[in-house]
Amino acid sequence: MRNDCIFCAIADGEIPSFKVYEDDLVLAYLDINPFAKGHVLVIPKLHSQGLLDTDDETLSAVVVRVKRIAAHVKEVLGCDGFHVLQNNGEAAGQTVRHVHFHIVPRWTGDPLNFVNHKGDMDELAALAERLRM
Amino acid sequence: MRNDCIFCAIADGEIPSFKVYEDDLVLAYLDINPFAKGHVLVIPKLHSQGLLDTDDETLSAVVVRVKRIAAHVKEVLGCDGFHVLQNNGEAAGQTVRHVHFHIVPRWTGDPLNFVNHKGDMDELAALAERLRM
Repeated sequence: MRNDCIFCAIADGEIPSFKVYEDDLVLAYLDINPFAKGHVLVIPKLHSQGLLDTDDETLSAVVVRVKRIAAHVKEVLGCDGFHVLQNNGEAAGQTVRHVHFHIVPRWTGDPLNFVNHKGDMDELAALAERLRM
Repeated sequence: MRNDCIFCAIADGEIPSFKVYEDDLVLAYLDINPFAKGHVLVIPKLHSQGLLDTDDETLSAVVVRVKRIAAHVKEVLGCDGFHVLQNNGEAAGQTVRHVHFHIVPRWTGDPLNFVNHKGDMDELAALAERLRM
């Protein structure tokens, strides 16, 4: 873990998160400033900054988890579709320099945007409970 | 291949594309209505509709290629960052029902949007030549 990385601190349990899924390699939790209801972040526990410095094995493990978690979120929330978004560099809106995949649920007719909305902590806690795998 | 799938027809060579990369499993080519310069689509040759019905092995192979292609695009174009975006379902803006990953280059200060712009065929051909791996 990197001492200066907030996602490493979350993966290490030093900072609490609205956890949805965890195994040896990967952690998934709700974004506290979601684009949409059920917006989940999936990270490898092993620190890397972005896609390009993530090793192939880790990357493969993460993407397979992204699929499983997205299937679960879709089933529980009944959304019509979802995005998987992975941003690299400040120019692409990456705010935390620990590689992460966004799963963003979508419902037919909802407005397409990738804008953060301040989450309500009680609602997020209840939602994490519903989504926990 | 699926007879009714335009991306299968592209993968099969029946429909031409501005190819950037190809191997046994994967094809990558320029989006002809790009979000930004150097917008590349990466698809598995094996048909699946979206993330959820893509087998783990194919998915792992694709994401590793996405990384390599993105690294190459970044190096050639000198962009400051990039998105990887993968849409599932019409509600999420998926227009072709063959799983695909968007690589979208970004430059510091450019406007964040995911809006298609009609591409110029000559420019796309020249760009594909520059980006070919």
